[in-house]
Amino acid sequence: MKSAIVLGAGMVGSVMAADLARDPGWRVTVADLRAESLEAAAGRVAAGGAPVTTVRADLSDASAVRRAVEAHDLVLGALPSALGFAALRAVIEAGKDCCDISFMGEDPLELDGPARERGVTVVVDCGVAPGMSHLIAGYEASRLRPCERLDIYVGGLPRERRWPFQYKAAFAPSDVLEEYTRPARCVEGGRVVTREALGEPEPIDFPGIGTLEGVLTDGLRSLTRTLRVPSMREKTLRYPGHSDLMRAFRETGLFSTDPVEVAGARVRPRDLTAALLFPKWTYRPGEEDLTVMRVVAEGTLEGRRVRSTWDLFDAYDRASGVSSMARVTAFPCTVVGRMIASGRVKGPGVLAPEHLGQRAGVLDEVLAALEQRGVRFGGRFEPVGS
Amino acid sequence: MKSAIVLGAGMVGSVMAADLARDPGWRVTVADLRAESLEAAAGRVAAGGAPVTTVRADLSDASAVRRAVEAHDLVLGALPSALGFAALRAVIEAGKDCCDISFMGEDPLELDGPARERGVTVVVDCGVAPGMSHLIAGYEASRLRPCERLDIYVGGLPRERRWPFQYKAAFAPSDVLEEYTRPARCVEGGRVVTREALGEPEPIDFPGIGTLEGVLTDGLRSLTRTLRVPSMREKTLRYPGHSDLMRAFRETGLFSTDPVEVAGARVRPRDLTAALLFPKWTYRPGEEDLTVMRVVAEGTLEGRRVRSTWDLFDAYDRASGVSSMARVTAFPCTVVGRMIASGRVKGPGVLAPEHLGQRAGVLDEVLAALEQRGVRFGGRFEPVGS
Repeated sequence: MKSAIVLGAGMVGSVMAADLARDPGWRVTVADLRAESLEAAAGRVAAGGAPVTTVRADLSDASAVRRAVEAHDLVLGALPSALGFAALRAVIEAGKDCCDISFMGEDPLELDGPARERGVTVVVDCGVAPGMSHLIAGYEASRLRPCERLDIYVGGLPRERRWPFQYKAAFAPSDVLEEYTRPARCVEGGRVVTREALGEPEPIDFPGIGTLEGVLTDGLRSLTRTLRVPSMREKTLRYPGHSDLMRAFRETGLFSTDPVEVAGARVRPRDLTAALLFPKWTYRPGEEDLTVMRVVAEGTLEGRRVRSTWDLFDAYDRASGVSSMARVTAFPCTVVGRMIASGRVKGPGVLAPEHLGQRAGVLDEVLAALEQRGVRFGGRFEPVGS
Repeated sequence: MKSAIVLGAGMVGSVMAADLARDPGWRVTVADLRAESLEAAAGRVAAGGAPVTTVRADLSDASAVRRAVEAHDLVLGALPSALGFAALRAVIEAGKDCCDISFMGEDPLELDGPARERGVTVVVDCGVAPGMSHLIAGYEASRLRPCERLDIYVGGLPRERRWPFQYKAAFAPSDVLEEYTRPARCVEGGRVVTREALGEPEPIDFPGIGTLEGVLTDGLRSLTRTLRVPSMREKTLRYPGHSDLMRAFRETGLFSTDPVEVAGARVRPRDLTAALLFPKWTYRPGEEDLTVMRVVAEGTLEGRRVRSTWDLFDAYDRASGVSSMARVTAFPCTVVGRMIASGRVKGPGVLAPEHLGQRAGVLDEVLAALEQRGVRFGGRFEPVGS
């Protein structure tokens, strides 16, 4: 029997713990500073698996992280982005294998050296996007010769479209505003270029949902350095109308972090905007969400120009009351975590999902495990006119 | 030779002064606290009329107002809305006839008693809307028997439509945000009802400009009490898209005056929004504006059901560099001011323009005088299917 600890008992961490606890081969611990989150996570697990151990720990403190992970074979990281990098470094220092989804702002590949020194295997950015998007990107980049283009489209959406935003945020609204502001790094003609966030709006028809709109955001992350594909970009999917409104907000200055003098006080407009949006963008209990993702790869296979399209359409799970975003983010991490623990995925070092996608059979195994959990990718393969 | 004083040397007051100064029958004084506004007003007048006298005075002080108006036959009020009521009361106390456009929040008809006591004639809300709108409303309400419906549409717009607002504010943006927030008082079935501001969007085709959108705002003012017309409403005209964006801003809470806690400071969202919008909604020097107004009256004339439509389409005057909004607001006031001075319009008391519109010949005289100044109303008259 193996032992895993999940760092972070939030929306995603609790689903990770439940997934592992359902598996008789695993003994599961969850760590968090928030007692109520631990309690909620334990309750979620109890509904469908063996009981988990909960540990209260301040995971912003590296020594607390090292102590927490000490007795375990595998670490799954599901901390907020601001805590992710320091916690991952502490995990590596403790000599533990890890699979992480914390979407840290720092570059986790910088920890490759320390991970190799300790002989541990770490997979980062291992959720849905980044995560499955990058696994597929790596797969296509290695089987198409050459792969000429990769487009990733992804969005988390409420099932009900409600005026004026037609949007709820599965994560902190402030992170969403950052996504709508930070220039999008794309690859064009083999060079990294930056484009305005929310730019190049494009209608995308999605079976089961209708027409969405894709707009550029800064989601390629490691891909700009790990893959040699001359054209790559990531777009966020929203219901049509949302990005127009957000561009108007941004143009007004509402996303700015430059303080404005207002009635004697200095205010960062983005702070006020986030405060106003937070209650409006929060999912109500039981409110259903959707996750949509499409990865399109173009290139040459056996001498023919082809386009390969991968689609994910996933919905809120009414039976368990677990959001789609939590499931599609947690499961790639628990699946790959198991593959690390079994030796199927080996470092040593820090690996991004696109590294794994280039290894024979890994994508197929991950897709099969996701399908067992109700997360199904569809796709099509077609010739492209020369 | 008669003597007039204009209270307020701003955008509208300076145009009033210039209009009177062009007339050899008048000696003109302009009063304001701001030396640079007085200088600009004097410069504007010098371009086309006799020199004016300028007086620096704090017109938020009633005794200063009384002193300023003392030596004059006629007062034209062009003060900011916050100062209008107190200044008008001081003018009445000083025993002076007055024509005013200050768009005060208070009800100027409350000063009817004092005005009658002093034997002075005061016409208030005497710009374009309220002003010409109400003059026409009074005219139609008295000639149609009965008048069943009055719809007023009015807007000041930049000639160039630019994303995202397609709008500039001829007046303070904070007044515009108030207009977008305060419930609109309408008359339906003979009763005053309130409707959400920016509601009931309606496409309005306007010759020379295309399709605009009319949305409910609280612009009927005195009409709800002065006219017995069972259906009345006022709508603000904007380029299509503007009011949708403003409704989204309002829904977000950006127009709220309830303080929000932001990073330790308490901020009224509307204050921040106004601060951000102010530079974006300000006309650049030479930037051209338009004024559009339509008044539609329905009722019975000589036994037939008819619809009478009045249209104003006025543009920035390139020759003088005077905005359309300043011209169409200033001229009704200078024209009616002259009619007060000549005895053509007589109180005593406080009159709204709709009172004058019910008097034989007044509307025709005002329209003729506006036409001499390049402000032309068109219209049509048509039977309505029974």
